Amino acid sequence: MPTPPDLIRSAYAELIVTDLAAARWFYVDVLGLVITAERPGVLYLRAFEEYLHHSLVLREGAEPALRKLAYRVRRPGELEVARRYYAELGVPVRAVPAGDTLGIGEAVRLSDPLGFPVELFYAAEHTPRFTQRYDLHPGNALARLDHFNVVVPDVRAGHEYYTGLGFGVSETIEDTEDNLYAAWLYRKQTVHDIALTAGEGPRLHHIAFATRERAQILHTCDLLGALGREAMIERGPGRHGVSNAFYLYLRDPDGHRIEIYTSDYYTGDPDNPTVRWDVRDNRRRSFWGHEVVPSWYAEASTVLDLDGGPVPTRQPAVREATVTVGADGFGTADGANGFKLGNQA
Amino acid sequence: MPTPPDLIRSAYAELIVTDLAAARWFYVDVLGLVITAERPGVLYLRAFEEYLHHSLVLREGAEPALRKLAYRVRRPGELEVARRYYAELGVPVRAVPAGDTLGIGEAVRLSDPLGFPVELFYAAEHTPRFTQRYDLHPGNALARLDHFNVVVPDVRAGHEYYTGLGFGVSETIEDTEDNLYAAWLYRKQTVHDIALTAGEGPRLHHIAFATRERAQILHTCDLLGALGREAMIERGPGRHGVSNAFYLYLRDPDGHRIEIYTSDYYTGDPDNPTVRWDVRDNRRRSFWGHEVVPSWYAEASTVLDLDGGPVPTRQPAVREATVTVGADGFGTADGANGFKLGNQA
Amino acid sequence: MPTPPDLIRSAYAELIVTDLAAARWFYVDVLGLVITAERPGVLYLRAFEEYLHHSLVLREGAEPALRKLAYRVRRPGELEVARRYYAELGVPVRAVPAGDTLGIGEAVRLSDPLGFPVELFYAAEHTPRFTQRYDLHPGNALARLDHFNVVVPDVRAGHEYYTGLGFGVSETIEDTEDNLYAAWLYRKQTVHDIALTAGEGPRLHHIAFATRERAQILHTCDLLGALGREAMIERGPGRHGVSNAFYLYLRDPDGHRIEIYTSDYYTGDPDNPTVRWDVRDNRRRSFWGHEVVPSWYAEASTVLDLDGGPVPTRQPAVREATVTVGADGFGTADGANGFKLGNQA
Amino acid sequence: MPTPPDLIRSAYAELIVTDLAAARWFYVDVLGLVITAERPGVLYLRAFEEYLHHSLVLREGAEPALRKLAYRVRRPGELEVARRYYAELGVPVRAVPAGDTLGIGEAVRLSDPLGFPVELFYAAEHTPRFTQRYDLHPGNALARLDHFNVVVPDVRAGHEYYTGLGFGVSETIEDTEDNLYAAWLYRKQTVHDIALTAGEGPRLHHIAFATRERAQILHTCDLLGALGREAMIERGPGRHGVSNAFYLYLRDPDGHRIEIYTSDYYTGDPDNPTVRWDVRDNRRRSFWGHEVVPSWYAEASTVLDLDGGPVPTRQPAVREATVTVGADGFGTADGANGFKLGNQA
Repeated sequence: MPTPPDLIRSAYAELIVTDLAAARWFYVDVLGLVITAERPGVLYLRAFEEYLHHSLVLREGAEPALRKLAYRVRRPGELEVARRYYAELGVPVRAVPAGDTLGIGEAVRLSDPLGFPVELFYAAEHTPRFTQRYDLHPGNALARLDHFNVVVPDVRAGHEYYTGLGFGVSETIEDTEDNLYAAWLYRKQTVHDIALTAGEGPRLHHIAFATRERAQILHTCDLLGALGREAMIERGPGRHGVSNAFYLYLRDPDGHRIEIYTSDYYTGDPDNPTVRWDVRDNRRRSFWGHEVVPSWYAEASTVLDLDGGPVPTRQPAVREATVTVGADGFGTADGANGFKLGNQA
Repeated sequence: MPTPPDLIRSAYAELIVTDLAAARWFYVDVLGLVITAERPGVLYLRAFEEYLHHSLVLREGAEPALRKLAYRVRRPGELEVARRYYAELGVPVRAVPAGDTLGIGEAVRLSDPLGFPVELFYAAEHTPRFTQRYDLHPGNALARLDHFNVVVPDVRAGHEYYTGLGFGVSETIEDTEDNLYAAWLYRKQTVHDIALTAGEGPRLHHIAFATRERAQILHTCDLLGALGREAMIERGPGRHGVSNAFYLYLRDPDGHRIEIYTSDYYTGDPDNPTVRWDVRDNRRRSFWGHEVVPSWYAEASTVLDLDGGPVPTRQPAVREATVTVGADGFGTADGANGFKLGNQA
Repeated sequence: MPTPPDLIRSAYAELIVTDLAAARWFYVDVLGLVITAERPGVLYLRAFEEYLHHSLVLREGAEPALRKLAYRVRRPGELEVARRYYAELGVPVRAVPAGDTLGIGEAVRLSDPLGFPVELFYAAEHTPRFTQRYDLHPGNALARLDHFNVVVPDVRAGHEYYTGLGFGVSETIEDTEDNLYAAWLYRKQTVHDIALTAGEGPRLHHIAFATRERAQILHTCDLLGALGREAMIERGPGRHGVSNAFYLYLRDPDGHRIEIYTSDYYTGDPDNPTVRWDVRDNRRRSFWGHEVVPSWYAEASTVLDLDGGPVPTRQPAVREATVTVGADGFGTADGANGFKLGNQA
Repeated sequence: MPTPPDLIRSAYAELIVTDLAAARWFYVDVLGLVITAERPGVLYLRAFEEYLHHSLVLREGAEPALRKLAYRVRRPGELEVARRYYAELGVPVRAVPAGDTLGIGEAVRLSDPLGFPVELFYAAEHTPRFTQRYDLHPGNALARLDHFNVVVPDVRAGHEYYTGLGFGVSETIEDTEDNLYAAWLYRKQTVHDIALTAGEGPRLHHIAFATRERAQILHTCDLLGALGREAMIERGPGRHGVSNAFYLYLRDPDGHRIEIYTSDYYTGDPDNPTVRWDVRDNRRRSFWGHEVVPSWYAEASTVLDLDGGPVPTRQPAVREATVTVGADGFGTADGANGFKLGNQA
């Protein structure tokens, strides 16, 4: 097997939205993302601590969908490494010239083995980093894109694919019959760049932006309430058992799910322990035992192939939602979770 | 009608608990209340900013129940005013000698027209106020008792009774057919000392303690998760439409409901506007549109009469829960709520 | 001595500013106050939880000064009570017709015995209360006017005057030689509506606005840094020993001092303990032992008489700054302060 | 030049303290560090999110000093890489057997070209990670060791040495005459693992621990005030211009300086922009323009050589403190800083 390309992190997503004005209201007016550039039918957005051209592209289209998940590679030469690597996997790779996506240099695109439209790039335009432009920060300022979360019928296969690319495994949801319900994998030194959840897929579950503190997430809820758009809050705020992150899930005007996320932990050491959650520990999804709303397990965004057609989906062998639902009352030993966080892979 | 006694605020509650050790774990070890005194079968607790002897008494008994709701009056002479006032209402009043409740001076007790065991007192022992004893404050430090919330079959009657006692009305939940589903009434300059909710009653819905900031409420959730007792979280954290408070509802080991509450607003001016919420505005109970769990509407604590027997309950004419439940999707005009907060009674 | 008028709280201040555009930038663009009305040369501002017409009036003039401190009375009839009360004190009172100040009803004005231009009023126009208009709240949203702080040569005399008006005394700074360096007095149920500090006076030390949480105060600092106007931060953020409030002091473009203030405590009970700080306890002004910048003790705003002329000042008998300065290293017993908060007056 | 060893992060420091009981009070009772192990005269401590054996070792001795700065390498083989690398630099390297430091495996020790006692290791015992043990977290819980900050006479030389080891440069303080006053360098994806400040050196300026949120830092101040130990607060809390971190500097009972630090930013991309601050921008050290206390520039801890003797110090060519002090009033263009954060190296 040849060397895999050196991916450094999840870098940007491109979503198809059916009403760009409505999407602009949600992502810019409500979430406060910064507009780097605007073209007919397309918006290029970034968060306040980001200096690359964009971390989210919104493109107007007929049906809501995921058009692209982009990872950044460590150096330009990794694109050639990627060509060889995917050729070996039997995955066709398309070369994309610089500027094909505004602000992004030469890249490669492929439909990955899990069925997702993925772009790899190194070169990108720099923009001012607004980390300290507090005069521009709203009460719910977003710091940076944190991760992607996808639904796949076979989490084990996804786990193999991403570990093959050199991703570390921070946490999993398993059972005692060796079923893998979900996995969190990372390249940058956080809990994840990509999460895999068992379900009908390939579909996009959500993309997540990080804030600095929890109060910024609470402000997003208050803001939606004040606007009478509280129905856009699907789940949370709450604390995840997995990742320890404080979370909030929103649905955008097209139903795309956005997570606002903060306070996970450092994973940069080579022996970072993998935390293995029992699917019956009702703190895995909500550390506070909150029930997970059915839509959160059932609904996700269609993904497109490289030619723009919807990728057909398959059903999973196992479903977390059928094994257990959120606050299911299954007991857990006091403090057990704290110790689990110290377990070895 | 004679002058009503001058009540200044909700002062303390006395709860019957079936396992004092379990209650002590919850109120002292988890919630961090300070123990002022301990007697066989009884605990006297206060929060960090309180200087009176206690704001909560836990008494061991056979069945969980509310034994007493106590209000403080402005001066000793108000006890005599109370005797005359209640005599006029045909409500028998019992004189209670100083020390009958540890740390509390001379008092009067009565079964109020709504069926609740109420004590009025002025004199009380002072204890050190731990406002700045940060060396004793846990991450979820409670500042003070904030209010009582009771379930009554006839909110309109309760509203009349408390306004007759000089309470102001900060907020209500109503409908267009002139039904009153809930009311918030105050003497101190916060949103309430007592709230009335329509339901089978008289029963105690909850007692609430205030924290300084929201993060202290979030820490209580994290703490219960860490202890594997996340099932004690019944509802929240969230933001109330009514009162604007950030809230969390817990159930103690006996099922008594405790609210942790912060960031309501000043109501001390005589013309403080009453905010009237439409029962169909799904932001009234959760400004973020969260569904209210059925137990929150259905369950409440038995109240005792002055002789310690359970007070029989009656069913309400109207029930909020049957008219609408939580995140019911009824639309509300953008920003409408903000303006409602400025409406006049 | 006749009955004093029933003042309920500090209600609004009127400041003379030399450049209204600069003042507008500071109070509206930076601090986020809401503009209720605007007239040539005058701005009427309020904070997000206020429903009266304004809590701050900015009037353009030749020299920076305090033109008015206004207290609200409990009912219209209190204005007549005030006339009789001040007549007895030999203080002339001027009747002011409704509308003389935009949004304010009939009032009386007087030069109080301490030399300050004071207005008493009951009637005022109501405006929408923006408590829940989170769509309008910046990251440093101000909730309400909290108090006035004035410099007087004789704190003892000021203490007598305000207690004569029925104000409670929450805290003081004293020494063992019976000198009174500062006093905090209240009508509403917070630590103060007015604070008196010994120094060359009468002058206005500052007016304070309350926020809900400390992070909102920190955001004001970040905002000023981002704007390159960090020099407007005179002192703080920090924690006061007195009041326990988390504070920040700013100087507006004319040098008027504004405090942003949060998390003091409830004082509504009749026997609320007075906390007496020793002038040598270096935690009294900064609980964290921070040195107090000299300008904070030395500088204050000129006050005007009812005819608009500057009121001459006198020097104090004692000065806190000369007795001790901020983090002066005088030891204090561990935890002593916590207990002081429980001491009796 | 041979390949440098692959250092992944600053891992632990070992300090000599003169009174272990006093140090234990400060680091364990006040700062809340977890005791992993205790030996006669030695304490091994870690923060709540750390799973390696320790991040701080306190060893009782006659004089306060720094005994060791330890970096973790990516794999065991890097120790041999280090031997070759330092041999080439003419720096003697000592092999240290596993267990020489409790909980740490085989290591190498050297006196680095800047004069600091440095240890490199890979193997270390794992301990439970208390990320979610909220039942053990105080209000000021520390998450992990973040960085070391050292004083050196020649920052340029230190910059060359660390970039030679593959460290990235996140920020600097410079002037227009090409003087380098300070530099921040990183291996993990934060602003730094090591900072270099110009001054009499080699000396240790401070070691820093990270918290999740700012309120946890404020609680440390409140806690010290409550204990009457507020004099241990040397500087802050405040916001650094450099790194954007919210900071607090404490002095331990021996005078060792500890920083509590939160909310810097992600630096993991290869082209992460270096932020170059002008030494005359008074926001570089305090984004809020606070004056830096003289002791902060003047005082630092003695460092020991490998044989335990104090390393002689040299004076620097330039001193930041003499060029400018903190809030020096030099103007900066509005918002300029925000844009600086986007500048390229």
